[in-house]
Amino acid sequence: MVKQARARATRDAIIRGAAEVFERNGYGIASISDIASAAAVTKGALYFHFQSKDDLAHAVIARQHELAFSAGALVLEQGRPALESMVLLCAGLGRQLVTDPVVQAGIRLTTEVSNFERPVADPYEDWLNTFEELARRAIEEGDIAPTVDPAMLAHFIIPAYTGIQLVSATLADRTDLLQRIRELWIVLLPGIVPADRLDALRRLPELIPTSA
Amino acid sequence: MVKQARARATRDAIIRGAAEVFERNGYGIASISDIASAAAVTKGALYFHFQSKDDLAHAVIARQHELAFSAGALVLEQGRPALESMVLLCAGLGRQLVTDPVVQAGIRLTTEVSNFERPVADPYEDWLNTFEELARRAIEEGDIAPTVDPAMLAHFIIPAYTGIQLVSATLADRTDLLQRIRELWIVLLPGIVPADRLDALRRLPELIPTSA
Repeated sequence: MVKQARARATRDAIIRGAAEVFERNGYGIASISDIASAAAVTKGALYFHFQSKDDLAHAVIARQHELAFSAGALVLEQGRPALESMVLLCAGLGRQLVTDPVVQAGIRLTTEVSNFERPVADPYEDWLNTFEELARRAIEEGDIAPTVDPAMLAHFIIPAYTGIQLVSATLADRTDLLQRIRELWIVLLPGIVPADRLDALRRLPELIPTSA
Repeated sequence: MVKQARARATRDAIIRGAAEVFERNGYGIASISDIASAAAVTKGALYFHFQSKDDLAHAVIARQHELAFSAGALVLEQGRPALESMVLLCAGLGRQLVTDPVVQAGIRLTTEVSNFERPVADPYEDWLNTFEELARRAIEEGDIAPTVDPAMLAHFIIPAYTGIQLVSATLADRTDLLQRIRELWIVLLPGIVPADRLDALRRLPELIPTSA
């Protein structure tokens, strides 16, 4: 048991070290030696857990998606209205992107598709499905107009969000990310909310704090 | 003169070769030899024009931005209403993204920021400024509601577009890109157009062809 816990702790440290090195140096020139050194483990210990840099990148992506998706599950468990949940999911991932190096590196690796033989599609699919389901529920709850196509809306929000965090990382080192996510909802809401619900829902974007 | 034209043709061939190799193999593992071979020039000729892979990547980005921005200028010269111009600019870049390997590689290199010492920010700034100016004009023309903040709208559309093309490239090899760009405008319009103009403008997204 102690041995298992230690192995798990080593594995976690390596994932954090890999995230740090990928984020600092970029995947292309990151080396296994740099990662072992950032994780304070020997290269031997690293190779016991991971076979290659590719393997490490996929582990960082998997951990990031696990962190984001489990934080998302907590939001969904609160039983809030679906549209409010959509806003809070965006806020939660935004906060993780501003504060958590594993999330930062995981998202960057996911968006830099050239690094991999096959593009990483699963995280997008998970979020697309979650948002389509929430949009469908929000229509039933009367917070999204029945004229809105829930699949189209999900296929708009998730890619738009992907681009907003990418451009914020590029132009502003993510310092404006939470503000930009809030603005996504400020711009989007009037077009998707039924006219008679707009006054009640107009302040939803304020659920997104503009600092982490 | 002939010599200059030949040098220019060689330079163009190298940029096209670099774009092809970056897009096929990813920037990280693309090699100068691969690029020389794809461009059908010697490595000596390549090094006469470009000092390094980094230099080549920036040349591909610059050429892509030149292609996109000059196509954009043609749209703007037609003197159409500003909101219609915004839709047509999105359509034009979308068509280039589906058909032109230099544009495909340039956009991918721009979004894969880890490849460079400093992120490539200029193309974003150019498009943000263009769209902010157009949004301001569309408000004057009565096609966008005066309650919409033109800077906020530009800072939403350009990153959203960036993400839409990225996710389309990742999940669908860009086969759904033009459809997704049309959907961006279908989702966005009802929230930014004045209620009394919506019927007149609702069909604007149909200006975006869904096949190149």
